[in-house]
Amino acid sequence: MSLWLRGKEVAEQVKSSIAAEVRNFEERGTQPKVVTILVEGDAASAYYAKSKAKMASQLGIDYEICRFKPSVSQEVLVSTIKRLNRDASVHGIMVELPLPAHIDTATVMSVVAPYKDVDGLTTVNRHANITGEQGIYPATPLAAVRLLKHYGFTPSGKHVALVGFGQTVGQPLFHLLVRENATVTVCHVGTPDVSRHTLASDIIFVAVGKAGLITPDMVHERHVIVDAGINEVEGTGIVGDVDPTVAEKVHALSPTPGGVGTVTTVQLFDNLMRAVHWQEQLGVLERTSA
Amino acid sequence: MSLWLRGKEVAEQVKSSIAAEVRNFEERGTQPKVVTILVEGDAASAYYAKSKAKMASQLGIDYEICRFKPSVSQEVLVSTIKRLNRDASVHGIMVELPLPAHIDTATVMSVVAPYKDVDGLTTVNRHANITGEQGIYPATPLAAVRLLKHYGFTPSGKHVALVGFGQTVGQPLFHLLVRENATVTVCHVGTPDVSRHTLASDIIFVAVGKAGLITPDMVHERHVIVDAGINEVEGTGIVGDVDPTVAEKVHALSPTPGGVGTVTTVQLFDNLMRAVHWQEQLGVLERTSA
Repeated sequence: MSLWLRGKEVAEQVKSSIAAEVRNFEERGTQPKVVTILVEGDAASAYYAKSKAKMASQLGIDYEICRFKPSVSQEVLVSTIKRLNRDASVHGIMVELPLPAHIDTATVMSVVAPYKDVDGLTTVNRHANITGEQGIYPATPLAAVRLLKHYGFTPSGKHVALVGFGQTVGQPLFHLLVRENATVTVCHVGTPDVSRHTLASDIIFVAVGKAGLITPDMVHERHVIVDAGINEVEGTGIVGDVDPTVAEKVHALSPTPGGVGTVTTVQLFDNLMRAVHWQEQLGVLERTSA
Repeated sequence: MSLWLRGKEVAEQVKSSIAAEVRNFEERGTQPKVVTILVEGDAASAYYAKSKAKMASQLGIDYEICRFKPSVSQEVLVSTIKRLNRDASVHGIMVELPLPAHIDTATVMSVVAPYKDVDGLTTVNRHANITGEQGIYPATPLAAVRLLKHYGFTPSGKHVALVGFGQTVGQPLFHLLVRENATVTVCHVGTPDVSRHTLASDIIFVAVGKAGLITPDMVHERHVIVDAGINEVEGTGIVGDVDPTVAEKVHALSPTPGGVGTVTTVQLFDNLMRAVHWQEQLGVLERTSA
């Protein structure tokens, strides 16, 4: 293979532009701040919350974790989010998913003010991404497209096989790709022969959440592959949806870890900056000094 | 070619089921009624309004046309729609498009109560179609899928080339097809070689609005083609997006006129019945007798 699409290079570039924006807002009296709602008991959630804390401190962004016991009631989460919506010193709210089974995730998410919804998961933001209107789009799809374009590959006029059409990644990614002028074939659980479609394509995006899904017989030498899958395999650790042996055959591939996920973490803070701008536009941004 | 996908057969079937529903509601004291907003000056709009009137009378549905001069103000249209929203004897509101240039169509459409939006064009209904939630979906995409399935062709597991991704037909059609479990390739103005994708597919849906777009070199012998394009060609009349010579080569094709459009007119009244059911569910349906 000739090229690894590494996330670090993109992340560094985005980080320095975010840091500059943060300084700019600070000079104008606004200290960007994000709060994560973390219900304890999910190891991955705790890990993500911690890595976001580290990133925030590098960027000069205030970061707070609101921790809850696994037995927390839905009412408490809802009233916490309402309080954060009202708190003008908080510009972004992240809810670490999955929430415990006794909590209705859709109800909790519906309470997040769209202009503080850094994850882009509220209905208003999901729909904005579909129509292309102003909003905060989901971070992982944005990161996947950003990673591809950073390495000089443009989706415009290309045939993209999108494998996986889930609500969080595949669906919003589809709309981003069509707006990037790609011709997209959407493959999902109901597609009998995925390789027929991947082999016909120029670029593959995969976001299924199944280790080893994309195998060497499904790819050709000119393929550029962006792997947005994240799977935990016992004894191996974190892997994507692409089988490791595919790397030898294709033209370019994003590694996991170190690919889309690395860009996603930064993208969340880029989304926070969009949130701050949106709040400024709405006239709800507080200035503590001038 | 072995098969014409004629709309008449489907339309007759849907009509008799609608007529039965209408009788059922009448017995329970509700006379279904739809009102069309018609701004004069567009020949096609006037034609559609008239053909809907004829269909309504066959189905036992009350039908009224609110006519306006081309100089009508946006405020008058908006206040008319508000009045119709409040009028419990009116169950469906159709706005004949296009509206004159001095009127903002989006603003006018946004006033239609979603549960009276027989065309499925309000934001609530568009989004319902995207997510698969309850709502009134756009009639033409529903008619296109209905026509295909009536002739025993199931999109599930098939590779569909969707040519055209406009807001009114292509986009809602895409979501219907994915929910029907089809693997869909979306081709649009940015697709450099549409024939590459049509030739690889099992079924073609076309909704571009360009006469002669699909030519014999773009199809194969096993193809089933649903043509949702409507174009007026001087001297010829109404034609679809598929070149007439394609018929000789493919397995099945919907004619224009007499294909999707024929089903669409009935589908609008099927949507009206959905509207009546929705209003019943919301408790806003008036009973004049029991």
